[in-house]
Amino acid sequence: MSEAHIERVFWAFRERIVDLKRDTRFRFILVFKNHGAAAGATLEHSHSQLIALPIVPDFVREELDGARRHFEAKERCVYCDIIRQEVESDRRIVQENADIVALSPYAPRFPFETWLLPRQHGARFEEAPRSVYESLARMLKSVLQRMNRALENPAYNLVIHSAPFSESHGDFYHWHVEVMPKLARMAGFEAGTGFYINPTSPEEATQVLRAVRL
Amino acid sequence: MSEAHIERVFWAFRERIVDLKRDTRFRFILVFKNHGAAAGATLEHSHSQLIALPIVPDFVREELDGARRHFEAKERCVYCDIIRQEVESDRRIVQENADIVALSPYAPRFPFETWLLPRQHGARFEEAPRSVYESLARMLKSVLQRMNRALENPAYNLVIHSAPFSESHGDFYHWHVEVMPKLARMAGFEAGTGFYINPTSPEEATQVLRAVRL
Repeated sequence: MSEAHIERVFWAFRERIVDLKRDTRFRFILVFKNHGAAAGATLEHSHSQLIALPIVPDFVREELDGARRHFEAKERCVYCDIIRQEVESDRRIVQENADIVALSPYAPRFPFETWLLPRQHGARFEEAPRSVYESLARMLKSVLQRMNRALENPAYNLVIHSAPFSESHGDFYHWHVEVMPKLARMAGFEAGTGFYINPTSPEEATQVLRAVRL
Repeated sequence: MSEAHIERVFWAFRERIVDLKRDTRFRFILVFKNHGAAAGATLEHSHSQLIALPIVPDFVREELDGARRHFEAKERCVYCDIIRQEVESDRRIVQENADIVALSPYAPRFPFETWLLPRQHGARFEEAPRSVYESLARMLKSVLQRMNRALENPAYNLVIHSAPFSESHGDFYHWHVEVMPKLARMAGFEAGTGFYINPTSPEEATQVLRAVRL
C-alpha cells in the first residue's frame, strides 16, 4: 500500500471509533491487524479488525494502572519520559519523523517488537490531529519495510493502544501502536507464567532494523 | 509411552521439585510440556521442561488470588467445589478414575482445553500420595489418546499448576494439570486484551472426547 492509502486506513479506524463511541454500551475499542497465518490471520487478503467491547480488558487496565502509578510518582507521563530518554540515548530508536518515534522498547516481550509513539501527548488515537495520521502512515510503512527486508516478510500482529472512552486518562496515558513480528511461538512457559522469554536484545533489534536501506 | 513410563515421568518431576525446593533462592517451579512445533516445541523428540523461578509468576499469583477470594467467601476450596458440581451435573466430565477427574472447564480459554484434577485436596503436585501419580498417568494417557483420535494428533501444551513453595496455600489452592491442544492461534485480539475467543463450547468438546472409543 502507498503511504496515502495507509493514512486512509488509519482515518477509517478513527471515523469508525468516533461513530461507535456514540453507543453508550461500549467502554473500549480494540483495533488490531493480524498479518500472515503464523500471526493468526484467517483471511488471505490484507485486513484489520476493530472490536468494540462493553468492558475494559485486563491487559488495558494493567497498562493504564502502570501509567497512572508513574504519573502519581513523577507527575509526568511515562511514555513522554520514554520518548525523551530514548531519543537522548539513541540506542533503541529505529526511526523518527516530525510526529512519530519508532523504537524498540527497553523490555520487549518479543524479538523485534517495535512501538510507534506520537511525540505529542494524547490519551486517545482518535483524538490525534489529522497530520499525525499522515506521519504515522509514513512511519508504519517504513518500519514494516525494514522488518520485511531484515526478517524476510514475517507474520506480525499490530495493536493500537488507546485509552478507554468514558474515563479520564488525559494526563497519564499516551496512545501508541505496537508491532510484534511473529518469530517465536508462545508455549507452555508463557502460558504458565505470563512471562516472556526473548532471545533478542532491543539494542540488537534496533541495529538490524536501522541497518536496512530503504 | 506406557502408563508405567508416564508415571515415572511424573515421579521424576516430583523428585526434581523436592530437590530444588532445598535451594532457598527459588519461589516457584513450573513444569510444562510443549508437544509439536505449533505448540512451540523446539526439539523433535518428546520432552518436558522444568523451570525454577526466584519469583511467583503473575498468572500463578492471579490464580492463587482467585482461589483465595473463593475460600474467603465460601470457606471451601474452589477446585473441590468445581469437582463436586461437575461430577454431579456430568455435562463436562471427560473421564474419571479413582483419583483423578478429567473435565472441560466451564469457561475454557481454548477449544478442547482439559483439566485433570485430583479428587483429594492438596496445594502441591509434589506432595501427592504416590498412588495418585499412577492414576494421573493413566488418565493423561487416556485423555491424550482421546485428543489424538478426535483432533488428529494435535500439538498441545501441558502445564502443571501447583502452589509456590514458601507460602501457605494449603486450604484454598488445589494442584492440577491443564492440557491445551493448539488448534487456534493467539493473535492481535488476545495480545491486546488478555481475553480469549473460543468457538467450541466445553459441552461440545466433552461430547467429542467422550465419544472416542479407546
